[in-house]
Amino acid sequence: MSSTTLFEEISPADFFYRNRDIAGFSNPVRALYSTVRELVENSLDACEAGQILPSIYVRFQHVSGAVDGVSIYRIRVQDNGTGVPGEKIPLAFGKVLYGSKYELRQSRGTFGLGGKMAILYGQITTNMPAHVISSQGDGYLHEYEMSIDIQRNRPNVLRYRTHPNEKRWHGTILEFWTEGDYTRASSKVVEYLKQTAMANPYADITFVDPRGRLYVFDRTVKKMPPPARPTKPHPHGADVETVQRLVAATDAEDMLSFLTKHFHRVGRRIAGRFLKEVGMNPLQSPKELSPEGVVKLVAAMKAFEGFLPPDGSCLSPLGKELLEAGVVKELQPEFTSVTQRQPSAYSGYPLVVEVGLAYGGQVPKTGDVILYRFANKIPLLYDETSDVSWKVTHGSVNWRHYKLNPLEEPLAVVVHVCSTKIPYKTVGKEFLADRPEVEREVLNALREAGRGLMAYLSMKERAERDRRRLDVYRRYLPKIAHFATRLSGKEEEPPLEPLFAKVARLDNPEVEEASRA
Amino acid sequence: MSSTTLFEEISPADFFYRNRDIAGFSNPVRALYSTVRELVENSLDACEAGQILPSIYVRFQHVSGAVDGVSIYRIRVQDNGTGVPGEKIPLAFGKVLYGSKYELRQSRGTFGLGGKMAILYGQITTNMPAHVISSQGDGYLHEYEMSIDIQRNRPNVLRYRTHPNEKRWHGTILEFWTEGDYTRASSKVVEYLKQTAMANPYADITFVDPRGRLYVFDRTVKKMPPPARPTKPHPHGADVETVQRLVAATDAEDMLSFLTKHFHRVGRRIAGRFLKEVGMNPLQSPKELSPEGVVKLVAAMKAFEGFLPPDGSCLSPLGKELLEAGVVKELQPEFTSVTQRQPSAYSGYPLVVEVGLAYGGQVPKTGDVILYRFANKIPLLYDETSDVSWKVTHGSVNWRHYKLNPLEEPLAVVVHVCSTKIPYKTVGKEFLADRPEVEREVLNALREAGRGLMAYLSMKERAERDRRRLDVYRRYLPKIAHFATRLSGKEEEPPLEPLFAKVARLDNPEVEEASRA
Repeated sequence: MSSTTLFEEISPADFFYRNRDIAGFSNPVRALYSTVRELVENSLDACEAGQILPSIYVRFQHVSGAVDGVSIYRIRVQDNGTGVPGEKIPLAFGKVLYGSKYELRQSRGTFGLGGKMAILYGQITTNMPAHVISSQGDGYLHEYEMSIDIQRNRPNVLRYRTHPNEKRWHGTILEFWTEGDYTRASSKVVEYLKQTAMANPYADITFVDPRGRLYVFDRTVKKMPPPARPTKPHPHGADVETVQRLVAATDAEDMLSFLTKHFHRVGRRIAGRFLKEVGMNPLQSPKELSPEGVVKLVAAMKAFEGFLPPDGSCLSPLGKELLEAGVVKELQPEFTSVTQRQPSAYSGYPLVVEVGLAYGGQVPKTGDVILYRFANKIPLLYDETSDVSWKVTHGSVNWRHYKLNPLEEPLAVVVHVCSTKIPYKTVGKEFLADRPEVEREVLNALREAGRGLMAYLSMKERAERDRRRLDVYRRYLPKIAHFATRLSGKEEEPPLEPLFAKVARLDNPEVEEASRA
Repeated sequence: MSSTTLFEEISPADFFYRNRDIAGFSNPVRALYSTVRELVENSLDACEAGQILPSIYVRFQHVSGAVDGVSIYRIRVQDNGTGVPGEKIPLAFGKVLYGSKYELRQSRGTFGLGGKMAILYGQITTNMPAHVISSQGDGYLHEYEMSIDIQRNRPNVLRYRTHPNEKRWHGTILEFWTEGDYTRASSKVVEYLKQTAMANPYADITFVDPRGRLYVFDRTVKKMPPPARPTKPHPHGADVETVQRLVAATDAEDMLSFLTKHFHRVGRRIAGRFLKEVGMNPLQSPKELSPEGVVKLVAAMKAFEGFLPPDGSCLSPLGKELLEAGVVKELQPEFTSVTQRQPSAYSGYPLVVEVGLAYGGQVPKTGDVILYRFANKIPLLYDETSDVSWKVTHGSVNWRHYKLNPLEEPLAVVVHVCSTKIPYKTVGKEFLADRPEVEREVLNALREAGRGLMAYLSMKERAERDRRRLDVYRRYLPKIAHFATRLSGKEEEPPLEPLFAKVARLDNPEVEEASRA
């Protein structure tokens, strides 16, 4: 039995080049959308890393090809973020699986892949090099002209220059050519920017499209949420590989200091209690752990209930105030109910879920709940029905319980999930896996917000009932008054208008006020 | 502005270890399902590569942990395929992005990733090495005990032995430990094997579950479809990167031989016509192409309409006969309508779509169309609503046009897409992107099969109408006969039963026959 099977190795860049569908670069429409999205997200991350109010400028220029259809565009994305160190620019933009997103910290990017995929797609469709200018605000601007050697997964620097940076400007400018179909991509691109503005109301975003149309999303608040901080693995989420790497790298001399040094929220007291319960010697060196010992340790850490839950303070959720500001600005509803859950966790990763319900007003009636999904402040626009939030809004929540018929009444649901690790199911970051802990948090958040909405709707219903009752009174009271007057032999009927006015005053302000609350 | 951003590089193994969600290894339930699936698919591919009728044996043994819930299992997957060359075993099982799936050829595996992910997941959850035994049917069996060095992306061989192979056995046996939740995964695992048997009726598959239950899926046919053959890129699907690689590697001395040598279905006549139309010198050396020249060539190849379409003969679809055999065996419907489309193409990849409609009989009534999705003979069980076939069956096809109300009548739709490149949207191979060409082929296939179903349902409707008419006759004819007899002064009424019997004979056989056709 002779085999003719050909074995070969390919580079990570080659892998993603061959399988660009899975990173969201499947065709000229989708690729243009993914390009904007990945680069805007990198820019926002670069600003937040330095606590800088983001100002982002995106421009598409038509270079050649059909005006309506697939064309070549020159793309420019500019931000005022922290910049990339000069010597790291070629790798950061030209080597797949090299980047700054591999820490345990909430960020928009997670795969360290998107920006390079955008450049790679531009290269394979136009064969043109990319230009990068960046500065960290020191005396120099670094300018590179470069391409990606896909087979070797390494940058190919064609030209490098430095310029003086007298104004101490900081940020990054990326310019390259790519193929795309803006005519068909435009609605998604604009929707993406609009929703990004909703979830990042402290960012200025300017977009110039290939026809020269200008889209400006001004910041509405100047306050940024507290920044996300890197964190250590939680003992409930650590696997064998993680623990083995820590064992190999640690300088801790005993298990007690090993646990307190490398794990999230493990102090000496809790570490001591844990080691006692699982029968491990606190003074043993971690380097002496056998392979079976590591497995035993990991299993014990997963099972031990005495650890503190992951601390959500390393996360950077939007907060009720900013979320409500975004929802009100973009959706202009009659009533908004916003809620933020306490930090929780899944598989040892901290998790915060925020939810907003927007009812009536300018929210359109579509015959179904309108779902806006965000993860670490980025909007998710594709594959909605596969997302955990869709499952919860359409399967688990009984909207009628909240006095609402979403088939007939206008309701928008905004779900924002924050974590150091978003459980995306695709590299293209389209939707979230239905991890049970995430599902439960989304459900509970919706129930909380739903109660607020129910209170408002009950009040509105009561007001409506009262108004109807008032209408009945209004119709019959004059007759009764007239009859009673005649019966009592009086001439003048009692004045009823003051009574009606008083009832109306008792009735309406309540509703008016709630819709403003 | 000083940056505290940490830049680092990670290996491909590390990338997929960190992002195992995207490869279908998100939790102990899903991981166990993905493990079976990836390994069974590799086994089926290894058999088909050698045109061997597959015999595959899968066994889960409970090792430790809860019996109902998350446990450690010993997994064994054995096939009678072509085997892996001894010296390539460590890399083939221990190095991510190394493999035999990177040619342009229809195969179940596409990412060269799944088998290694199964081993990697086992390793990070149990810290136990994997055992591989393989032979290509020569004098030796190769046995390895090994693990994966995730950070370096390389195999770590712990032990290597060879054994004599007197019986010239060929195939591969993989055994390793992994964590899983069989209690919750079992229904999907069994459903996966059942559907795999439906799409591969020439395979023997045996599965022993952790409770010792035996599932046997015997082959029902001994005929295998013709094997898939590797192919060259089609000029419509080649991008700049592909052409540049060919230019760098070619020994063709002029453009004419360059095109005929490296592209699918390009002969000298067509190549000559193409070069003339785009004004390129047929005698120019491909090595002299400038970067702009390559872009121009690629654009011209995409636009030129004189190329022959990709040839589907390199594909290995199931064929109407095998598809129908599988559908009838597994679904036992009242009526089956099967269709295979002519080969077509998307982005230069050949494409064949096969469809089966199964109506009535044992097909359950669920209030909706039951959709079975297959791609290159593997069943897709997750994220159905994101798949192009769901979009077509639920959005584009007007079932009422085919005299069918899928909300009330039992209908199963089987869609099988074959290609040298399936447009998966996830590494976990859950669903197909809605590439327009794929969508159109699925729709046309459903319409074709739908017409067959419609003919049957019309016939059935007509028969039903006739039967009702007959019932009316049956009720009134005796009265008329009686009345007419009296009126004519006769004593004996004419016999009606022979007439009814004759009508019934005229009526039923037609339907009976069609449901067997």
